[in-house]
Amino acid sequence: MSLLTVGTVAFDSIETPFGKADRVVGGACTYISIAASYFTKDINLVSVVGDDFPEAELKYMKKRGINLEGLDVKKGEKSFFWAGKYHDNMNQRDTLATELNVLADFNPKLPESYKNSKYLMLGNLTPEVQLKVIKQMKKRPKLIVLDTMNFWMDIAMPALKKVIKHVDVITINDEEARQLSGEYSLVKAAKVIQKMGPKYLVIKKGEHGALLFSGEKMFYAPALPLAEVFDPTGAGDTFAGGFIGYIAKTGNISFENMKRAVIYGSAMASFCVEEFSIGRLKKLNARTINARVKKFSSLVNFNMKNK
Amino acid sequence: MSLLTVGTVAFDSIETPFGKADRVVGGACTYISIAASYFTKDINLVSVVGDDFPEAELKYMKKRGINLEGLDVKKGEKSFFWAGKYHDNMNQRDTLATELNVLADFNPKLPESYKNSKYLMLGNLTPEVQLKVIKQMKKRPKLIVLDTMNFWMDIAMPALKKVIKHVDVITINDEEARQLSGEYSLVKAAKVIQKMGPKYLVIKKGEHGALLFSGEKMFYAPALPLAEVFDPTGAGDTFAGGFIGYIAKTGNISFENMKRAVIYGSAMASFCVEEFSIGRLKKLNARTINARVKKFSSLVNFNMKNK
Repeated sequence: MSLLTVGTVAFDSIETPFGKADRVVGGACTYISIAASYFTKDINLVSVVGDDFPEAELKYMKKRGINLEGLDVKKGEKSFFWAGKYHDNMNQRDTLATELNVLADFNPKLPESYKNSKYLMLGNLTPEVQLKVIKQMKKRPKLIVLDTMNFWMDIAMPALKKVIKHVDVITINDEEARQLSGEYSLVKAAKVIQKMGPKYLVIKKGEHGALLFSGEKMFYAPALPLAEVFDPTGAGDTFAGGFIGYIAKTGNISFENMKRAVIYGSAMASFCVEEFSIGRLKKLNARTINARVKKFSSLVNFNMKNK
Repeated sequence: MSLLTVGTVAFDSIETPFGKADRVVGGACTYISIAASYFTKDINLVSVVGDDFPEAELKYMKKRGINLEGLDVKKGEKSFFWAGKYHDNMNQRDTLATELNVLADFNPKLPESYKNSKYLMLGNLTPEVQLKVIKQMKKRPKLIVLDTMNFWMDIAMPALKKVIKHVDVITINDEEARQLSGEYSLVKAAKVIQKMGPKYLVIKKGEHGALLFSGEKMFYAPALPLAEVFDPTGAGDTFAGGFIGYIAKTGNISFENMKRAVIYGSAMASFCVEEFSIGRLKKLNARTINARVKKFSSLVNFNMKNK
């Protein structure tokens, strides 16, 4: 069923202990849409780029069933650019450059055909812009998922809290859950955040997996321990894309199905980190994805009966 | 089946954001033995205390089926004492005092009746003392588990590597696995450590759960997200006690059974942190333990079929 994805489509320059990638394709909405495209073909993308963004990459996205009618290509302008360098442990990174370019005055206007999308995935972006998208929908989507980060908590907490009121699921990392709630315990943080609006909370813990909370219910998805994490950029967005893609595919927003969506999201993220940019994501198929999901199953599966 | 437990029996003074506990019962072997006593009643303890150690606590341990023939009570001397203060996040602590006292020249001599124990749990202690215990066994135990910490890696790595050669299972935390192996990736670290001797490696990640490795096999046990972690002291030892206790009870050292043992160890550790010292551990029974294990099951359980 139709999925509206909103966020950045951009360039990244990345340095990890394993190598360098210069001005490769990045952006939350890129990762989200490509990951989701392995589950559903009815994806409506909203974003903005300059005319420096490679035509071949846009063609690739279209080929994957991503509708680019809502992609604003600004003539004579440059795409959003981020440069970062990861520390040896890959858990920390320094931002070396952020050039907003076309993002500076991004004011999304949804094409008419987008306004009835059944699922809405708001990638990491200014909370004001996220809210503007929600307000343009003709019908309240069946599920609205919002991803955000500490940056917006630091500089735009009131606006963030305003948009959070309107969403069903929020995905953030553990430090962000603590910052947003003011509670150190994630169990307590989950309660506080659910009171802000979202019925569901996904806490992404990187190499330590992900937690799904709703009311008194709790689900823990592991991360797949990997021999090599080549580049973590986009892993959280890819998780979100796999998560909402699986939900859009199945049309089921029960807690039980969200557990499966968290596992699919984790599986997609585990691919993302294996190469720079969307390199690994481009080479997947249903068979490789299902094989990866099976690894998650066997990783946590135990039978309490001693046979 | 008989289980030999070795380690400290001691006093701790602890300060956490929730309160203070002054000279309460602590020590690796105390936590290990009491946790294991919920699974097996044939426990042989080896340790040393001064005559300041409360008789009532020793009586309690005996009542729980812990054989204290191997506990050396030194007249006129003082028990090992540790004082520490936890940071607000509970993940870090500062050591305020360490008084070795009777531990300074601890030279364990196993009672004859201990030397055929089927299972051996070496709690965190000088590697030389751990090796001395192994050497005194008449028959090689069916399973030897060793717990250690970064302190010994810093000051006694060669001795530690020597004792590690003789054990089947080693339990350490993630930072220690990295230090011991020189590898940041835990998957790679596990391979390196297994080459040092132990066929099994348990990496304890505190609030992020535990990983069990053996050859190409991998198992991820979550930690139960708790609203309150009152005092983490002894959680790792309690984990080890639950783990080895379950194995001694079942007599099964297959990977499948070790997965269950990791879950029981995690469940016991989740109780330990709920009160100071052995407060919570004293109040358990089979029913409360099994109810907690069920929580672990439901926390990670998912069915990939969308019904």
